[in-house]
Amino acid sequence: MATYPPSVQRLLDELMHLPGVGPKTAERYVFSLLRQSSDRLQRFAAALTELRKHIVICERCHNFDEVSPCRYCRDKQRDQQTICVVADAPDVIAIEQTGVYRGLYHILGGTINAVEGQGPERLFIPDLIERIGQEKISEVILAMNPDIEGETTALYVKKLLGMANIKITQLARGIPSGGDVTYMDEATLGEAISHRQAV
Amino acid sequence: MATYPPSVQRLLDELMHLPGVGPKTAERYVFSLLRQSSDRLQRFAAALTELRKHIVICERCHNFDEVSPCRYCRDKQRDQQTICVVADAPDVIAIEQTGVYRGLYHILGGTINAVEGQGPERLFIPDLIERIGQEKISEVILAMNPDIEGETTALYVKKLLGMANIKITQLARGIPSGGDVTYMDEATLGEAISHRQAV
Repeated sequence: MATYPPSVQRLLDELMHLPGVGPKTAERYVFSLLRQSSDRLQRFAAALTELRKHIVICERCHNFDEVSPCRYCRDKQRDQQTICVVADAPDVIAIEQTGVYRGLYHILGGTINAVEGQGPERLFIPDLIERIGQEKISEVILAMNPDIEGETTALYVKKLLGMANIKITQLARGIPSGGDVTYMDEATLGEAISHRQAV
Repeated sequence: MATYPPSVQRLLDELMHLPGVGPKTAERYVFSLLRQSSDRLQRFAAALTELRKHIVICERCHNFDEVSPCRYCRDKQRDQQTICVVADAPDVIAIEQTGVYRGLYHILGGTINAVEGQGPERLFIPDLIERIGQEKISEVILAMNPDIEGETTALYVKKLLGMANIKITQLARGIPSGGDVTYMDEATLGEAISHRQAV
């Protein structure tokens, strides 16, 4: 059987820890890296080492940044009365890229997943309740995915926030931009009809 | 627009140099790496740095290893009269994993691609001719892919080797193991019939 030189095997093992990377993809990456200059590999290695040195989790919203509180929590230009609640940090990036939202964030650190036995106790929900008690929040946007885990989590958070006198909203459901009515799935088209918007 | 902390952006840039990795995949990798321990990131970085320090290209067959000549060229137990010619180093790994071949290798470093204007001049074909002149080679197996680039390259190499008094073979064409005759493409099924084997 073929075995790799030890230095190649070590890198393969590390690459296979990346999400969705199996032996074949790791091999492809290694063969590409073997062709790159020593400088480039050094820069890659340095970027990895520095990641952990510089990145901290925001004490307020649990987003990641190089300082805590994070860039969004520090920015006084942002609407301080609105919190957008998301499952994970990548969602913040996606929402920021729209350029539409100018409020604060709160990262739950996941969703409730009954099938995998992941309850709400490992999520940053108590912190959210605390923030709403301390800050002058008037609206909470629940921006979880429209799937079972996301909806369960949104429902759970909504119930806990029920007592507070704040507006609770969710992302609009409907046909995605560029979508095709003919081929749209029933659930989406149904939601688009139910939540039809005035023009 | 959302911007990443500089340390995250640097790592994203490096990851996007991997084959097939775009902004979204790089993001996914970074978010996964952010969750890993500092130790793990250090190990990953070390594996990258060490790759180039340890890996050399074999002076004889152009395979990679930690020493030159490589493990296959050094192994006197291997059949010294047969050379398997492959396009790239990953093909050696694939062939070795079958456990069927026990001869030598020669890596061309690519294929002839007329569409992309890549001729034979950047391939290690002169080295192959030289080896055949110097070593006692009785058979050359052309193990390029059965596609246009692979066939063009095989044809080119075959023509150059024509004058030498050696057996030239190619990998058998036919139905892959586990394949289904009903759904096999015409080209493959045609080749399987033409090259039918005695049982």
